[in-house]
Amino acid sequence: MPQYNPPLRDMQFVMHELLNAVDELKQLPAHADIDVDTINAVLEEGGKFASEVLAPINLSGDLEGCTLDKTTHEVKPPKGFKEAYAQYIEGGWPALGCDPEYGGQGLPVLLNQALYEMLNSANQAWTMYPGLSHGAYEALHAHGTDEQKKTYLPKLTSGEWTGTMCLTEPHCGTDLGLLRTKAEPLGDGSYKITGSKIFISAGEHDMVDNIVHLVLARLPDAPQGSKGISLFVVPKFKVNADGSLGERNPVFCTGLEHKMGIHGNATAQIALDGAVGTLVGQPNKGLMAMFVMMNAARLGVGNQSLGLTEVAYQNAAAYAKDRIQMRALSGPKAPDKPADPIIVHPDVRKMLLTARAYAEGGRALSMYVALTLDKALSSGDADERKEADDEVALLTPIVKAFISDNAWIATSHCMQVYGGHGYIHESGVEQFVRDSRINMTYEGTNTVQSLDLLGRKILSNNGAVLKKFGKKIAAFVEEEGTNEAMQEFINPLADIGDKVTKLTTEIGMKAFQNPDEVGAAAVDYLRVAGHMVFAYFFARMAKIALEKKDSGDSFYTAKLYTARFYFAKLLPETASLIRTARSGLSPLMEMDEALF
Amino acid sequence: MPQYNPPLRDMQFVMHELLNAVDELKQLPAHADIDVDTINAVLEEGGKFASEVLAPINLSGDLEGCTLDKTTHEVKPPKGFKEAYAQYIEGGWPALGCDPEYGGQGLPVLLNQALYEMLNSANQAWTMYPGLSHGAYEALHAHGTDEQKKTYLPKLTSGEWTGTMCLTEPHCGTDLGLLRTKAEPLGDGSYKITGSKIFISAGEHDMVDNIVHLVLARLPDAPQGSKGISLFVVPKFKVNADGSLGERNPVFCTGLEHKMGIHGNATAQIALDGAVGTLVGQPNKGLMAMFVMMNAARLGVGNQSLGLTEVAYQNAAAYAKDRIQMRALSGPKAPDKPADPIIVHPDVRKMLLTARAYAEGGRALSMYVALTLDKALSSGDADERKEADDEVALLTPIVKAFISDNAWIATSHCMQVYGGHGYIHESGVEQFVRDSRINMTYEGTNTVQSLDLLGRKILSNNGAVLKKFGKKIAAFVEEEGTNEAMQEFINPLADIGDKVTKLTTEIGMKAFQNPDEVGAAAVDYLRVAGHMVFAYFFARMAKIALEKKDSGDSFYTAKLYTARFYFAKLLPETASLIRTARSGLSPLMEMDEALF
Repeated sequence: MPQYNPPLRDMQFVMHELLNAVDELKQLPAHADIDVDTINAVLEEGGKFASEVLAPINLSGDLEGCTLDKTTHEVKPPKGFKEAYAQYIEGGWPALGCDPEYGGQGLPVLLNQALYEMLNSANQAWTMYPGLSHGAYEALHAHGTDEQKKTYLPKLTSGEWTGTMCLTEPHCGTDLGLLRTKAEPLGDGSYKITGSKIFISAGEHDMVDNIVHLVLARLPDAPQGSKGISLFVVPKFKVNADGSLGERNPVFCTGLEHKMGIHGNATAQIALDGAVGTLVGQPNKGLMAMFVMMNAARLGVGNQSLGLTEVAYQNAAAYAKDRIQMRALSGPKAPDKPADPIIVHPDVRKMLLTARAYAEGGRALSMYVALTLDKALSSGDADERKEADDEVALLTPIVKAFISDNAWIATSHCMQVYGGHGYIHESGVEQFVRDSRINMTYEGTNTVQSLDLLGRKILSNNGAVLKKFGKKIAAFVEEEGTNEAMQEFINPLADIGDKVTKLTTEIGMKAFQNPDEVGAAAVDYLRVAGHMVFAYFFARMAKIALEKKDSGDSFYTAKLYTARFYFAKLLPETASLIRTARSGLSPLMEMDEALF
Repeated sequence: MPQYNPPLRDMQFVMHELLNAVDELKQLPAHADIDVDTINAVLEEGGKFASEVLAPINLSGDLEGCTLDKTTHEVKPPKGFKEAYAQYIEGGWPALGCDPEYGGQGLPVLLNQALYEMLNSANQAWTMYPGLSHGAYEALHAHGTDEQKKTYLPKLTSGEWTGTMCLTEPHCGTDLGLLRTKAEPLGDGSYKITGSKIFISAGEHDMVDNIVHLVLARLPDAPQGSKGISLFVVPKFKVNADGSLGERNPVFCTGLEHKMGIHGNATAQIALDGAVGTLVGQPNKGLMAMFVMMNAARLGVGNQSLGLTEVAYQNAAAYAKDRIQMRALSGPKAPDKPADPIIVHPDVRKMLLTARAYAEGGRALSMYVALTLDKALSSGDADERKEADDEVALLTPIVKAFISDNAWIATSHCMQVYGGHGYIHESGVEQFVRDSRINMTYEGTNTVQSLDLLGRKILSNNGAVLKKFGKKIAAFVEEEGTNEAMQEFINPLADIGDKVTKLTTEIGMKAFQNPDEVGAAAVDYLRVAGHMVFAYFFARMAKIALEKKDSGDSFYTAKLYTARFYFAKLLPETASLIRTARSGLSPLMEMDEALF
């Protein structure tokens, strides 16, 4: 069975040494009291919960899956999930990043994000239950009426109730404008909602007394398309005025999907059979309200993939040190044993280091974005909030798509390290591959992310936000320009920065002629942009490692070598990506549809 | 449920138009009577069997898996597998490529290979039962005594019995030199064999009366390591002198593996508890004898991946034409519908064309190697046999690793085309991804393949065999040098040919200093070599397509566009691969093992 050791040291390195997070957070009125000890203590306790409570029920949860009782419409998650959830709320974990007004601890997004990385490493399927809840909390916090907030937020904060997001219908996922679920006003300010939803994560389970569904539906007079969608909150059990639970609302789980992975999470088909709900936000502005939840969810998906990359790496590295098989081509390295541990083989190391570099790069990026989100939410300065918000918007599709694509590569490499044993369920590593696969698809496919990045976040503002981020890179390049030891990192960083600028301009010009050029280049472009961002963080981490590597702490040596590996073996992927991005639309569109 | 349409036209194109296979085969004494009609008739009938009998039980077989009765040690494959197998032997299919002396039809390897591509598209898990049998047939045909051949070959040819290869043990897979299973002589020419084997595909089932296990084991006086391994044939039921079945041999299935995919195949743990067998080939030369089977199996694995790539492509293409979602960025393409079919989106086309190009390139390569294998086996000229054999040896690791890596990429892309629906079992496409994953690992991991290619097949003979293949490329480049329409294909082909030559020399030089440099570069190198080979075949196919595209047959237009796509979007991967291959060993070895 796989093991999980929370990477506390690397998390602390990123927070305290790379991002100087405490000083940054202290500038924000909401976090003026934060300190290093609090952060470290929370990380340590969260790590214990992840490794001791969640990791042991991950493999068994995958094998068992969830079960639906078709007569009662009730769902049982795998053994141990309910008990783990009870411990989770007992520990007060759901409240970590929530508003003190509703019982939350008001800690930074950054810390909540670090907690979730660990939960995801230990058990992605389980973590989706509280993860979806937190998303529902955020949407209601941002767009709910006072009444809705009073009714739902304390329970979501305590974790006594969980939440879902009910968007997808059988005929529409990416294109929510096509959705058909109907909401009819009942005249008392509430609505009767009827329709069928699918792919509802954490959609039904017996771990809590009530489930708060956020449902997209159409009002009777709604315009067609995405401008006619409204958001409703629909509880599983109606809530009485005194907060006690009332009658069962007809929002039923009618089926569970058989999925490639995340078996422990109940992916529900939900039938709304005249269920009663209330409107969240403005009529016909539901998609906008839901985007609060969706953007958080996209960062969350990157974080899921970061978690899987880390845990897959840890286990594959342990296996590679333990498993003996063949001799090094350069001669025996463990002559006392009948064969060498497979970590002597260069390609085994390459697979391991790929996962390690993608984990460390992903962590730096994820934490940077989380800290920036804290600024966007809590800065006292409106300009700083706006600037931070723009940067989060720019980086969100990269966090979601780049980290999830990387996790697919990394977990598969880690599985390969196990040889045939990796294909066997008991190894646990094939589960990481299967679980990670959904991350490339849900919350907006990675193609959708790439269009969001290149079309909406970059070209629509003529690259203004990208340029601001580019200035940070340029400043660092400038700053280290005379540092001899940094040249191996600074030169390729400067180079990829220039190339992204040129590539962006070139695609922008082509897109004037034909907007489909954006679609032809976007996926390649996103990976190039992702590498630029990773190169920036690896260069910055290498700088710290170079300064401290003689401290006697081998952590810095390892960090330096991982950065070197990244520049030598992963960043060069951009050479191909830039070519294919530049080769444009025509090789994709020549073939008539009928010939496919 | 996925559908499968045998790609008869493309198979016939490769055989008859690209490879001119019938004329080539007619030169071989064993196949002097072959003709186009026979080939096409066999393909058509084989395709019917695959699509009508095997495809319908693929998804259900995945869900059901195999069941072991722990008291009787008997295994039941999924519903329908036994009946399909009965139809398979009734149709005489196992005999297709077998020696007429033992009841075979003596048809070319090429044709058998084409049959297997279709069987694998329809149902890889099922196809492994006859596939392993055919491997056992080949090993016994090449190395068995007359007695063994007489006893086993007719039954393997008719399909009444099936075969296995029992190599792996819990502590050794890649490194068979470590194996521990013991063979003790019984004095009557037979041996008592004791040990534990794992990962035995098709290791136990109830589809036939007897199973012929080929088992690697050590004789009492055997030298340590891989030079002390002998090969034995161990039937499930002993065979009496009159050919009837005798008593049960103690070779028992003690467990079935829970795997990521190929659930319909019984991957057995096998206990040999003093089972009686006879020696195949020379004592202590078992690995060499087994390599006959293993080389065939490696080509077979490439063929499995080709099959999965093709079927995944077909289904994803159909889905992309049917599923409507969003509008093209360049404006509505199906204004009469509420949204456009997703095939209008450039990235959806990119994913589909990637799978299509990998299928068509893989088919050209696979069939070329199969035809070359026919020459190696059946040419009347010893020099031609030797030359063909060398070329097959060179290309085998490329067929195995390049096509299986490509299938992993392609099936995942096809799954992505389905959006969230691809993650659901019922779509069938996630099964293709899971099934394809084992192909990168078994029969020698893809890392092992890359070391075989670069170390053994290329550097050990100073690139002599590679140069011969390079001359074919150079001749084609020369021949088309003045053909204006071919420049878009010929120039990059010449370029990649040059680059492979330079890269090979450079790695060879480095390897003199440190043999581990081979291990650092080999995986990247194999993909570069694979692309060179694909570029060669796509250029040749493009030439035919250019000549015939005005014939009114849109097949040639599609072929031309697929070739253009390949050169524009896939071949450029080599730009990165060459860089990472050249960046060498040091970024992989700097980190101390303890720091992983």
